[in-house]
Amino acid sequence: MTQKSAPDSTRRSEKSRRAIYDAALALVGEIGYTKTTIEGIAARAGVGKQTIYRWWSSKAEVLMEAFVDLGARTAEAAGQAEWEQADGIPDTGDLEADLKAVLRATVDELNDPSYDAPARALAAEGVANPAFGEQFVGELLMPALEMYVRRLRAAQDAGQLRADIDPYIARDLFVSPLAQRWLQGTGPLDHAYADTLVEYALHGLAPR
Amino acid sequence: MTQKSAPDSTRRSEKSRRAIYDAALALVGEIGYTKTTIEGIAARAGVGKQTIYRWWSSKAEVLMEAFVDLGARTAEAAGQAEWEQADGIPDTGDLEADLKAVLRATVDELNDPSYDAPARALAAEGVANPAFGEQFVGELLMPALEMYVRRLRAAQDAGQLRADIDPYIARDLFVSPLAQRWLQGTGPLDHAYADTLVEYALHGLAPR
Repeated sequence: MTQKSAPDSTRRSEKSRRAIYDAALALVGEIGYTKTTIEGIAARAGVGKQTIYRWWSSKAEVLMEAFVDLGARTAEAAGQAEWEQADGIPDTGDLEADLKAVLRATVDELNDPSYDAPARALAAEGVANPAFGEQFVGELLMPALEMYVRRLRAAQDAGQLRADIDPYIARDLFVSPLAQRWLQGTGPLDHAYADTLVEYALHGLAPR
Repeated sequence: MTQKSAPDSTRRSEKSRRAIYDAALALVGEIGYTKTTIEGIAARAGVGKQTIYRWWSSKAEVLMEAFVDLGARTAEAAGQAEWEQADGIPDTGDLEADLKAVLRATVDELNDPSYDAPARALAAEGVANPAFGEQFVGELLMPALEMYVRRLRAAQDAGQLRADIDPYIARDLFVSPLAQRWLQGTGPLDHAYADTLVEYALHGLAPR
């Protein structure tokens, strides 16, 4: 059964939008963010430059939306959408297992070239340009970080995390090491690393 | 008593080098890294462009050396040179106190505008450009990270850190959260944060 819920102009817009996203991601992967231009994206997408400027004001904004869309499609295709769409880290009752699962998935994502190229470009732009950085971090990174805070609060309620812990600081012990190894290449970024971080942070480095 | 150990040409070279460093740091602070050029640095330093190209091949390299030099001078002026020049974190026998001291000093450095502008420019260039990133991280970041590894090994010998801990991973629990808050602005970067990180990492987040 076919469904025809959208008028033709909306369908054309959606097709252009998809083509623009694909072109932006492809160009950043192939020639790098610096050499990618609005003109280049328009040419590759087969749309007029004005079509892009109607919806976005800079290549950074185009890439950011394309990247968000990529994330949603990847998660859907991999059947991983459940916790991302439900806006939360799974709560199986085992904090250590849940954190390892989500950190391992993050490691896989960071090591995926189709994710790395646009995400690295956006992160570099955010480091260099504080105004864009605030937007990038606020829209893309903070919602993911909030999921950790909620999961850690649930663990506090369940007695698996000390009650006096600030979940915003505890969160950083898990996510910041992945971020730095990804951004600055300070060491291997693999599942074993993710697992070890969780064990060290939960149980502490000092002798018990 | 005056000392005249260097021939005139060496002294002139040193004067030019200092002027080039100062010009590079001033321009990056005033107009940003993107707009800073070799030509602009030469003009501001009062030297010919060729003088710069004789010693460096890119503005990123000039800035990196200027930044290393700034760090050495700042440390010397503040009388903080001891542990940096001795190439190690102090070992008073109290791991927790020593880590808090060095992380607090790092927080102060990251929050100092004269450090932040060039360091942020170099970090952004390193994220965007993997070849430069490897050089930047290898020459500037890794030696500092190695100091943590050595201090953590000493703590293992002294029984203040679990013997089965990998110091390269333990190190990240302290330094990566500072790096991410600095690079991505994911939360306040102050002494209280530094202290809390040390306490959480050493004693663990899970109830004992």
